[in-house]
Amino acid sequence: MKKILIIGIGAGDPEYVTVQAINAMNRADVFFVMDKGVAKAKLVELRKDIIERYVKERDYRIVEATSPERQRDAASYVDAVETLNHEKQAVFERLIGEELRDGECGAFLVWGDPSLYDSTMRIIEAIDESGRHQFEYEVIPGISSVQALAAKHRVALNTIGRAVEITNGRGIAEGFPKHVDSVVVMLDAQNAFRQLADEDVDIFWGAYVGTEDEILIAGKLREVMDDIERVRAEARARNGWIMDTYLLKRRTQPKD
Amino acid sequence: MKKILIIGIGAGDPEYVTVQAINAMNRADVFFVMDKGVAKAKLVELRKDIIERYVKERDYRIVEATSPERQRDAASYVDAVETLNHEKQAVFERLIGEELRDGECGAFLVWGDPSLYDSTMRIIEAIDESGRHQFEYEVIPGISSVQALAAKHRVALNTIGRAVEITNGRGIAEGFPKHVDSVVVMLDAQNAFRQLADEDVDIFWGAYVGTEDEILIAGKLREVMDDIERVRAEARARNGWIMDTYLLKRRTQPKD
Repeated sequence: MKKILIIGIGAGDPEYVTVQAINAMNRADVFFVMDKGVAKAKLVELRKDIIERYVKERDYRIVEATSPERQRDAASYVDAVETLNHEKQAVFERLIGEELRDGECGAFLVWGDPSLYDSTMRIIEAIDESGRHQFEYEVIPGISSVQALAAKHRVALNTIGRAVEITNGRGIAEGFPKHVDSVVVMLDAQNAFRQLADEDVDIFWGAYVGTEDEILIAGKLREVMDDIERVRAEARARNGWIMDTYLLKRRTQPKD
Repeated sequence: MKKILIIGIGAGDPEYVTVQAINAMNRADVFFVMDKGVAKAKLVELRKDIIERYVKERDYRIVEATSPERQRDAASYVDAVETLNHEKQAVFERLIGEELRDGECGAFLVWGDPSLYDSTMRIIEAIDESGRHQFEYEVIPGISSVQALAAKHRVALNTIGRAVEITNGRGIAEGFPKHVDSVVVMLDAQNAFRQLADEDVDIFWGAYVGTEDEILIAGKLREVMDDIERVRAEARARNGWIMDTYLLKRRTQPKD
């Protein structure tokens, strides 16, 4: 039997790694590192640093594979992601079939937490259900960029007794959800927060949180949104990529 | 200057502790451990075990204090929590004023993650803003029960490209939010999931996740809700307390 570990390694700071993740990494014979082109090279490096830093108890191999990219001109985002996941599944199947021997343990290191806006679990489950490969698998949680952001801004995600929504740029572009007063936005490439300029909300924004390039900006959305847009564009140009997240909180409670 | 660390220690398994949290604990001179009566004695024990297991580099003191309890018969939940937080603030102020010397570092160990349904950050911020005590403070994120639950069930919180809401028992009792298809419910003492029996949803439920008492149940809500209610009541009676969380996912996508 083969064994697969899907390990959340936290979002940015190598110190976000948990003891459970370290122990899991020390059980792996093979690390599968997916390379997504120049923009993500830094993230591949960070994964390798984490492996080197924490894996002390055994020999291991690192197998790199090129990860397919999402078609950005596809008609539907969901269709594009599903197509992408099928292509990724083919790559993962090849890795599991050809690069992992029977009795061995292979690990996928997932940025942040595997349960939030990441497809690794879904793909491994689909391979498992296909019956084409025999393996067991386990998931290890990690500190997500959402939690890193909240900790750095020293702000709670929820207000007392109320809900929080976690969404993406497309979700928030439809407007501030009516029945919640706190929204976390991940994967917003379009500065969708600008569309909420008329709402009475605070924004807590962060890029590269937990890394040496970390940038934090917080304030009344209307007052800081131009700064965020400018700083974001400059950082993206300087680093060649950006990874940012933000929390929006209503300053006044809705009247429901 | 005094220093205060608000450290998330993860939800259940001592291996959920991060390297950052371990390093932070090793900077503390004093650990403040809040005791909330018999039902929470187990959680106090788990905190002490974590301190003993990970703090190797220095001497420390543990100061226990009795945490005020929320008035369960209060007219409004928010008012009750705010009253509770004022009482907690008085306790925290006494600890910071009397039990922490100038130049020392004090740590509050928070179950799960400090940014989610926890008042420690809010209380420390209020003390800071009062100007009555001079200190610096830092927040360290931890694995929340939400992430532990998702990892154990090996299920993603969100469906592709869609939002997730994190709410409490009161929130979900108002119905399944219309524009999301995934909802995490924390702090539901009333089995509010029963009110969604007519919805076409799956439930992923867990109690004491990450501990030796862990119980997991998943399935179509209608088919497993009686089991969950029974198992939950039995576990609560057996252990004297319960800590459970669940994820609800629509089986069919809403048509928006």
